[in-house]
Parts: sequence; structure tokens; C-alpha cells
Amino acid sequence: MDAHLKETQKDNRQVYTGHFLKVQQDTVILPDGKHAVREYIKHPGAVAVLPLFDDGSVLMERQFRYPLHRVFIEFPAGKIDPGEDTLDCAKRELQEETGYTAAQWQYVCTIHNAIAYSDEHLVLYVARGLTQGERKLDEGEFLDIYKAPLEELVEQVRNGEITDVKTVIGVFWLEKILSGAWTPPPRPAGI
Amino acid sequence: MDAHLKETQKDNRQVYTGHFLKVQQDTVILPDGKHAVREYIKHPGAVAVLPLFDDGSVLMERQFRYPLHRVFIEFPAGKIDPGEDTLDCAKRELQEETGYTAAQWQYVCTIHNAIAYSDEHLVLYVARGLTQGERKLDEGEFLDIYKAPLEELVEQVRNGEITDVKTVIGVFWLEKILSGAWTPPPRPAGI
Repeated sequence: MDAHLKETQKDNRQVYTGHFLKVQQDTVILPDGKHAVREYIKHPGAVAVLPLFDDGSVLMERQFRYPLHRVFIEFPAGKIDPGEDTLDCAKRELQEETGYTAAQWQYVCTIHNAIAYSDEHLVLYVARGLTQGERKLDEGEFLDIYKAPLEELVEQVRNGEITDVKTVIGVFWLEKILSGAWTPPPRPAGI
Repeated sequence: MDAHLKETQKDNRQVYTGHFLKVQQDTVILPDGKHAVREYIKHPGAVAVLPLFDDGSVLMERQFRYPLHRVFIEFPAGKIDPGEDTLDCAKRELQEETGYTAAQWQYVCTIHNAIAYSDEHLVLYVARGLTQGERKLDEGEFLDIYKAPLEELVEQVRNGEITDVKTVIGVFWLEKILSGAWTPPPRPAGI
């Protein structure tokens, strides 16, 4: 049904390989037969964890994000290692960044955060039955963790204090889940 | 309060300048005094428009996004031109992509979609009092527009058919606005 929208790859090359970023430049054939260049970041994908305590409060992070030169309120998150299952990645990132482990894990949703210029996807999980332990941050990683009532986070989405997309979307989802309006869907195959 | 998290720029250089993407590589001083490299995309920012009809339905787009090789359901959106006001950009993009103009515009929120590797921000506006006109797509731009009830979009966020972050967040906001739970905030200065 989408033939009139579809772009087809003609050729491709990696035009930049940096420390972290890889830029791909493909020539595509447009729906009208003309050619165009599409340039985008190759990204392995990431996970974000919504760590929910039994009292309805949430484990959050505050982290300095250099590209925007300021501290963001965020859910724990991190990049998927090559070949890593997304749920294993979620468990690893939660433990590394916060020290917590969780007894129950539930898939929430998958989001695409920069569809114009990146192939990144983010997979969100809710983690419950939390137990505190020792965190082990990566070299060069600095972040604070704290516990917040969900109502505070909802208010911070409303008033613009929370602007990170995985965190905005995770807060909206937690509100839906905790109110009983939505049940998280089953985890799709291949995620 | 965030000195223990803050990273300070030591030097910077543009390491890749492509057709669309610019990659910046900065050396930073970490909170512990060590050095690290931060690599990120320089992006001018973008706007997204939530076009709301008087009957509560919404004007949407379907567009092929090459980095992910599939069609996405999206709100009208586009990059900010150099020096362009975000509201002017929203009006321009709505008209170019859909042909519609709007009598009333309201700021909704600002979001950051890739804080680990891009300085992009997206400014969302609600547009009401819509009047149909002629659209004028950019060269090489192909997209379908259609009208959908908000309930359909909410269901598509829940079931994973809508995964584009500006669209997920816009749908959650529209649900809050139309239910009367949230009033959009005033437009911040400098946006």
C-alpha cells in the first residue's frame, strides 16, 4: 500500500566512523524515480528502565548531558551491547547505574527517537520488586539517583522540567499503568 | 548544586560535515578532573504541530523514514531554518506539508530526543481553527495526510503502532488537553 511513499536503497557507504558515532550515507531511489542522498546515524539501540517501588514511587537519575550542557532528569538507560537481548540489557543497566536488581520485569513499549537521521530504537521495561545493591558506573560516568513520587514526575512533565523523551513517555505510561487504564502489552518477538 | 556532575569543554572541533549532518567532537573535563571525548550531532532544532479539528479529530501524516526503512505515523514537523522563530516555523511546516493554515496556535512543550548524542530540541504547538489550502512539498518529500479521531491515535500509542517520540508525546498531551486535565503552559521566553 505504501509504494508511492517508499524509498529504495541504491548504494551505501559509511562516511564517518568516530569514537561513538557512525554516519551512513546512502543513495536512494525516490517514489518518482529520482535519486536522493539519505544521511543517518547507525545506532545499536538502547533500553530504558522504569523502576517502580511497591509504594508507587519511582527510582530516577540526574545526569549531565554534554550535548545540551545541562543536567536532565531521566530513567536509567543505556545502549544495547552487540548481540545482547534487550531485557538482559535492561537488567544490566539498572544494576550498573543504580545498584538495584528487580524481581519482576515487564515490557512496556518501543519508541523511535530520531527517525529523520538515526535508526535508534529504545525499548522500555517496568521493573518491580526492587532490591538495593552496589552500583558500578562505567569509567567517566557520573550520575545521581533518587526516589520520587510519580505525581512529582507527572507534574514535571506538565511544567517542562522533564523533557527527555524516554522519560516523558515512561512517565505517561506509568500513570496509565498505575491508574489501571492500560495494561502493558506482551513483549513482541525479536525485541 | 550540580558541580559533581558537570562536564566542562576543553576544546572542540567539527569532525564531519555532511549533506545534512554535522558531527562535533569535544574534549571535556570530567567532574573528577579526567578528560573524555564527547561526540554529538549539531542540530538546528525542529517543531511539531498537533493540528486539531473542531470535532476533536487530528490531522496526521504517513511518511517513509529511510533510516528505519518503513512508514511512520507522525504529526507534521520540520527543521527550524537559521534565525527562524519556532512559531513561524510551525506555521510554515504545517502549510508546506499539509496545505492547512490555522487561526489559533498554542505552545505545548519542548522535548529533547537524543540527549546522549544530539543537541536537537523539538517544540510542539497545537493548531486550531484549521482551513484547507494547497500544500507545497519540498523536492524529494513524499507524504500522505489523513484525519484521525484522537481515540484511534491513543489506541495506536498503546498497541505500539505509533512509536515516533514527538507523535507519542503529542498524543498523550492532546488527551490531557481535550479531557481538561491539563492546560498548555505559556510559551517560554526564547523558544
